[in-house]
Amino acid sequence: MKRRGLLIIVSGFAGSGKGTIMKRLVEEYENYALSVSMTTRAPRPGEVHGREYFFVSKEEFERKIKEGGLIEYASYVENYYGTPRAYVEEQMAAGKDVVLEIEIQGALKVRERYPDAVLIFVLPPSVEELYRRLKNRGTETEDVVRKRMSRAAEEAGIIERYDYIMINDEVAGSVRRLHNLIESAHLTPGRNEEFIRGIQNDLVRLWKGEE
Amino acid sequence: MKRRGLLIIVSGFAGSGKGTIMKRLVEEYENYALSVSMTTRAPRPGEVHGREYFFVSKEEFERKIKEGGLIEYASYVENYYGTPRAYVEEQMAAGKDVVLEIEIQGALKVRERYPDAVLIFVLPPSVEELYRRLKNRGTETEDVVRKRMSRAAEEAGIIERYDYIMINDEVAGSVRRLHNLIESAHLTPGRNEEFIRGIQNDLVRLWKGEE
Repeated sequence: MKRRGLLIIVSGFAGSGKGTIMKRLVEEYENYALSVSMTTRAPRPGEVHGREYFFVSKEEFERKIKEGGLIEYASYVENYYGTPRAYVEEQMAAGKDVVLEIEIQGALKVRERYPDAVLIFVLPPSVEELYRRLKNRGTETEDVVRKRMSRAAEEAGIIERYDYIMINDEVAGSVRRLHNLIESAHLTPGRNEEFIRGIQNDLVRLWKGEE
Repeated sequence: MKRRGLLIIVSGFAGSGKGTIMKRLVEEYENYALSVSMTTRAPRPGEVHGREYFFVSKEEFERKIKEGGLIEYASYVENYYGTPRAYVEEQMAAGKDVVLEIEIQGALKVRERYPDAVLIFVLPPSVEELYRRLKNRGTETEDVVRKRMSRAAEEAGIIERYDYIMINDEVAGSVRRLHNLIESAHLTPGRNEEFIRGIQNDLVRLWKGEE
């Protein structure tokens, strides 16, 4: 019985550590494919087309929108960012669980189109720890850190709309728990209709009324 | 943060191997308590009060019913069988996940009272395998095996009302998957309200509007 892949949507505050966890998840287990976004912004030094992003022109991006070729998209600082549909659906059909890191508004939009998607919100163990992590990155000014914390305060009200939370206290454990969570999500009856129907049919055909 | 235990209800066809899995689950991991049923039938040789069952008189059982001291009960071949409420609730309050092996009708009744219970249906890999396991027990006549298979045919229609299915192909793997499944069930927002509210309150109190 070949199982169909799930669409796994991961969100979290800046500083929650979600990026690290997802990178490790895809490295450590074979059943995942990381969705690569499409953008109109220019590549930065070291960024590779098809790895960090698919870098395309504004015209190409807008053609994709018209064709319905994007699961969701948004514009940010005059550039488009979106999730190409074809890759996601190919990988799911091939049995891969496709992991999509996306902010909250995008996540809820994707859920409308893919009601079977699994939404996971990565949380820090505490607000103090979130602040500490953002400060310790060392790359951001105090002003940016304040903005990130303020943004988190706005986003926090939406946590309950996710299917699961993942408290990221320590990377290795979080990766393992995230993997177990996704494996467990495969075990709902709705995601095993074919197998269940097979068992039901065989039982009824061969054994019904045999008492 | 101390987590509250969950009520885990496990059902499955005779021959699905659910009893073995649950015994091993409770042996291998510390966070479980196996619910012990109460019955009015006489103990068989080797059975211990409080281990296999709580053996009580008919009067005591009926008093328990009247007091609301049973989560569910049924009578079968002129004897009562039921699940004492006190033990289940004490263990959950102490943070243990309470595992309750119970047939389908009882499981659905328990769910009415405990909407947060997690219902898991253990399935054999195939109907042929189910038949083989029942035959290989060697303790049952062909007639009993037919009855069990026929009963399974009647029960099969209800699988979709469970939260999860567990395909028991091999014991060690099934025990591990069952444990992971229960750990994952702890990660829904509804089961972490206190933690989420703590994060929300701290963020809003300290950082809202700091931009």
